Amino acid sequence: MAKCNPTKRSLFFLPLLISLLSAAAAVRRHPLDPLSPNELDLIRSLIADSLPNPSTTNVTFQYVALADPNKQSVLSWHSNPKTPPPPRRATATVRYNSTTHEILIDLGKKAIISNRVYSGPAYAPFTIEEQFAAAALPPSHPPFVAAMKKRGLKMEEVVCACFSVGWFGEKRKQKRTVKVQCYYLDGSVNLYMRPVEGVTVTVDLDQMKIIGFRDRYEAPIPKADGTDYRESMLKPPFLPPLNGIKMVQPGGPSFRVNGHSISWSNWKLHVGFDERAGPIISLASIYDMEKQKHRQVLYKGFISELFVPYMDLTEEWYYRTFFDSGEYGFGQCAVALEPLRDCPENAVFMDTHMAAGDGRPVKMPNTFCIFERHAGDIMWRHTEGTIPNRVVRETRPEVSLVVRMVAAVGNYDYIVDWEFKQSGSIIANVGLTGLLEVRASKYTHSDQIKEEVYGALISENTIGVRHDHFLIYHLDLDIVGGPNSFVKSNLRTVRPPTPDSPRKSYWTVVSETARTEADARIKFGSQAAELAVVNPNRKSRLGNPVGYRLIPNSAVGPLMSADDYPQIRAAFTNYNVWVTPYNSSEKWASGLYTDQSRGDDTLATWSLRNREIEEKDIVMWYTMGFHHVPCQEDFPLMPTLSRGFELRPTNFFESNPVLKATPPYPLNRSICPL
Amino acid sequence: MAKCNPTKRSLFFLPLLISLLSAAAAVRRHPLDPLSPNELDLIRSLIADSLPNPSTTNVTFQYVALADPNKQSVLSWHSNPKTPPPPRRATATVRYNSTTHEILIDLGKKAIISNRVYSGPAYAPFTIEEQFAAAALPPSHPPFVAAMKKRGLKMEEVVCACFSVGWFGEKRKQKRTVKVQCYYLDGSVNLYMRPVEGVTVTVDLDQMKIIGFRDRYEAPIPKADGTDYRESMLKPPFLPPLNGIKMVQPGGPSFRVNGHSISWSNWKLHVGFDERAGPIISLASIYDMEKQKHRQVLYKGFISELFVPYMDLTEEWYYRTFFDSGEYGFGQCAVALEPLRDCPENAVFMDTHMAAGDGRPVKMPNTFCIFERHAGDIMWRHTEGTIPNRVVRETRPEVSLVVRMVAAVGNYDYIVDWEFKQSGSIIANVGLTGLLEVRASKYTHSDQIKEEVYGALISENTIGVRHDHFLIYHLDLDIVGGPNSFVKSNLRTVRPPTPDSPRKSYWTVVSETARTEADARIKFGSQAAELAVVNPNRKSRLGNPVGYRLIPNSAVGPLMSADDYPQIRAAFTNYNVWVTPYNSSEKWASGLYTDQSRGDDTLATWSLRNREIEEKDIVMWYTMGFHHVPCQEDFPLMPTLSRGFELRPTNFFESNPVLKATPPYPLNRSICPL
Repeated sequence: MAKCNPTKRSLFFLPLLISLLSAAAAVRRHPLDPLSPNELDLIRSLIADSLPNPSTTNVTFQYVALADPNKQSVLSWHSNPKTPPPPRRATATVRYNSTTHEILIDLGKKAIISNRVYSGPAYAPFTIEEQFAAAALPPSHPPFVAAMKKRGLKMEEVVCACFSVGWFGEKRKQKRTVKVQCYYLDGSVNLYMRPVEGVTVTVDLDQMKIIGFRDRYEAPIPKADGTDYRESMLKPPFLPPLNGIKMVQPGGPSFRVNGHSISWSNWKLHVGFDERAGPIISLASIYDMEKQKHRQVLYKGFISELFVPYMDLTEEWYYRTFFDSGEYGFGQCAVALEPLRDCPENAVFMDTHMAAGDGRPVKMPNTFCIFERHAGDIMWRHTEGTIPNRVVRETRPEVSLVVRMVAAVGNYDYIVDWEFKQSGSIIANVGLTGLLEVRASKYTHSDQIKEEVYGALISENTIGVRHDHFLIYHLDLDIVGGPNSFVKSNLRTVRPPTPDSPRKSYWTVVSETARTEADARIKFGSQAAELAVVNPNRKSRLGNPVGYRLIPNSAVGPLMSADDYPQIRAAFTNYNVWVTPYNSSEKWASGLYTDQSRGDDTLATWSLRNREIEEKDIVMWYTMGFHHVPCQEDFPLMPTLSRGFELRPTNFFESNPVLKATPPYPLNRSICPL
Repeated sequence: MAKCNPTKRSLFFLPLLISLLSAAAAVRRHPLDPLSPNELDLIRSLIADSLPNPSTTNVTFQYVALADPNKQSVLSWHSNPKTPPPPRRATATVRYNSTTHEILIDLGKKAIISNRVYSGPAYAPFTIEEQFAAAALPPSHPPFVAAMKKRGLKMEEVVCACFSVGWFGEKRKQKRTVKVQCYYLDGSVNLYMRPVEGVTVTVDLDQMKIIGFRDRYEAPIPKADGTDYRESMLKPPFLPPLNGIKMVQPGGPSFRVNGHSISWSNWKLHVGFDERAGPIISLASIYDMEKQKHRQVLYKGFISELFVPYMDLTEEWYYRTFFDSGEYGFGQCAVALEPLRDCPENAVFMDTHMAAGDGRPVKMPNTFCIFERHAGDIMWRHTEGTIPNRVVRETRPEVSLVVRMVAAVGNYDYIVDWEFKQSGSIIANVGLTGLLEVRASKYTHSDQIKEEVYGALISENTIGVRHDHFLIYHLDLDIVGGPNSFVKSNLRTVRPPTPDSPRKSYWTVVSETARTEADARIKFGSQAAELAVVNPNRKSRLGNPVGYRLIPNSAVGPLMSADDYPQIRAAFTNYNVWVTPYNSSEKWASGLYTDQSRGDDTLATWSLRNREIEEKDIVMWYTMGFHHVPCQEDFPLMPTLSRGFELRPTNFFESNPVLKATPPYPLNRSICPL
């Protein structure tokens, strides 16, 4: 994190609005569709008109989103298209007169429903514009100018980025501020590898002025050489080029996109967009050939928060404990995906829109790509050689559907994939790439280091600071609708009941249905268990509970102490799994207001109520973590490191749902016309 | 497990031997190349000629393999092609006169070097032929005939398979036996879903006769309906077909195969084959552009054992604790890969050869496929939006190299992938598919079950029995040659040294170099650590130890009690990671002789010596596990479940080795000629 990428804003400010609006009109509106440009315009004008002095009041739109329509109304509409859709409402968190307002708008009635002042200590996400404005202040601040001059730096090569300040036990409400950290280009675009260390500027965002400056110490600026990653700037030798390789689909993709709804093979789902969450997968249902109908799996799935704390106690670093969703807007940081590079040849792209800092709609081209993945994997196979004089061989290659978004939250790029398999599996995967956040240092060799430097030397004068990434997924599974229960099936070692058994042990499954939230808090470790969300009222024909199980990929938990302020704010990382009863207000695991939050509105605090979760509409939360110990391979740009998890049907189907998958056709026919 | 697939044997018995031999002659011989057909023939004839009564002695070739040439000699030859290759030797474990002989042969001198009788209690892997012979005995055994008649079964629809008997504390050496379990086809090829439960036949393999018969009880044969998986036998409705999708490489693959050596982009490696291990990756080295040379990474990597214990204590099941490598020969169970289905369009196939039960060479077509994987993943990317009025975007799509083999060990199919990335990562992945081993039962609904049934009802009268899969990889890493050390870097929570820090904690890295084997035994759990094999004498220019780290994917450990006989035999599963000093005789984690083994020759016993491993030629062993609780989706055939691990460079390169990767060309050019 640092400051997210404003590609769309600077390049595509309101260009094709009219054509977009007319195109959008042709598609039947889904109640979960993200806000359209005219809806965003409407919100802006309604709010502007409501101000006592619209011309002189400076309003910033911190977060504008579709207000979740009532879940039951969405489900009714979804199950019967003749049911009227729920009213479309929007929520706008705006700031004016140094006050945060939560404004609820009825888009159909074109009216403000409520305008509530939030006066707590925390703040809504930054806008991109205010980050740019704050980052532009230092060069006209004389002490900063002096500091750069002292270091012999050319001011035109200095660029700055905004960092959230966190909360470290302050009792009184603090001003809305950011720390501004600056970097030196001068021969590279890889600013993050060239920090101007020791200088910290504090900016009051409401006043948009510098309120603090500190030049504590000097460290060498790491050299520019070797930091640039642009193809045009790289010098030979290159890795030998590979022969061309390409995915082709002569008949086009097998999926259909209708607005934001996607249907592919046995899946139907909706892909929404939110400035804070990024992609929101909704109403994912899969066709059950036996039952001859689509059955609900996931009402809603999204990344609720992404917490990135750095493990450096120095004055310039201790506060770097970023909440990329709640502070920066993970969706707001979405980048335009590049065809053929960010997504394969057979990808289809989807644009989105969001509100700029002034409330105007901004088109974000190529926010999502959707493609069929044909990686050479095998969906299922068997070669049977036991039958004498006979060989049976059947194989089905795997083709799956991927929905991708990439968010570049300052230095880090997160590749977010939601993958759907015909077998019913949903795989959520995150790839981490981009640039490290490094501290400039006097050291050029490890042997010189005799103190705690909070990281590893990854290039001369460059310490890659240790840090974590914790992504928490909100997984509102509705297995065949609801209500659902969470079942933990412990694998327990058992001694044989009679001593005459030749075996001395086996393991069995002891299932516990979680009654309350406390029963469902799970830290991954060495205990073997299967975790499933089941529908206790929908048994399979054999009487097995119909469900989906979570197959995690790692067992990473927090390493900060529980009393540390950033950990209190990110207490949702205390467990890998949580289950809560559905509550429309419990979306953001770090709280509705995250910037300078104090941990009083997190998943961990909601869960303290220890509500009943058995046979309820429940939400599973899954925390996936990475501890990052940087190494030289991460310099000057990190090769992708991926991690994910699988939601896999377990007795959801009466039998293997892909037994009757037909292999992709025509696999072996020539692609080129004769 | 059960009986592995003899596709190649029945179909390709010695057909094209002459053409093969002449083709092979054109390629320069690599000392690690698997045995050629003429070498196999030589071995057979040398052994036959050495027998006192060759014409009347029945010899079975249980295991024939290239004897590992001296590692130093291979390395000398590898580093300097003018060095003569080490002498080619073979090891043959043969059985005649009810005795196991270990015969060492010098292939160059065409002579037997030694013939040692092994008289311990355990046995070498079964041959496929003896499994077929044993499985063919029951229909001519009157009590068996009566048992089938009593059940109203047609004998011509009964097929049988051989199961290893294990060891359950017997003090005296046992005969070489198998249990034969039979199944009923009658309308399906999916025999494994139709066990004739309650009947167990015991066969003496040396005598090749039935020495035990038991008809303990009857259970209904599960119905044939719904079990067949052949496309030709499936009835609509099918899943809607997907549009054609195909990987094309107009210029052909970017890798070169020379014999068994493969070079691709910055990688060079050798792919060997062994009846027991399957694929053996050797001498994998990666080109370091900075150093302008290839640097050694992996001297040898292979699956040393695959342990599959079932958790059912009934008389017909308790002994099913299979060692798929040591008992059945994981390589021997390799199947012919089907183009376009088992491997994508751009795959190249490689045949292998092995010794049949009578020692004759058998061609195994399409044992390996090699392809470039272009799954739509991103190797690295960044979008930079912090610099005012400027957007930088660079992305490199990922293309990797995959070497695949599939072993069908009776019911289960294991898809073994070794993936090599230009970034230096090696990813080993295993996909599990094929058929469950099920127990027939009277139950047709879960509500009827009031006893421990050791599994789940997955179809009427069909219990999917709980079981595990533990794969142990032998990873003889030689990071930039040797010697190497194993470093465990613990991530430890630390309080700030001074109380005035705004933070109350951070985590740091405390690295420990393992001095002896005991220091390097690791059970995965909640403790955060990075595990690396490093070359302590090769520091990076910044002084960091050059290494590769292990990124595991799960934390599965054994659940059987340590005193249980199968667990004693499979004690190598007690830890997820072990490190041993290189010892050419320590290849098989379950012991050289595994059938009826007693756990006295396993990785766990070798490691008891607690040898020094610091700055030595060391081998890392990694155990990857699956606990399998079957569900209805696994019936009648399982969708693939995958798991793997990554070996990732850490300070091995001076900087990101794929910064200068050129994107595949011509990605965006039309594939078809104009």
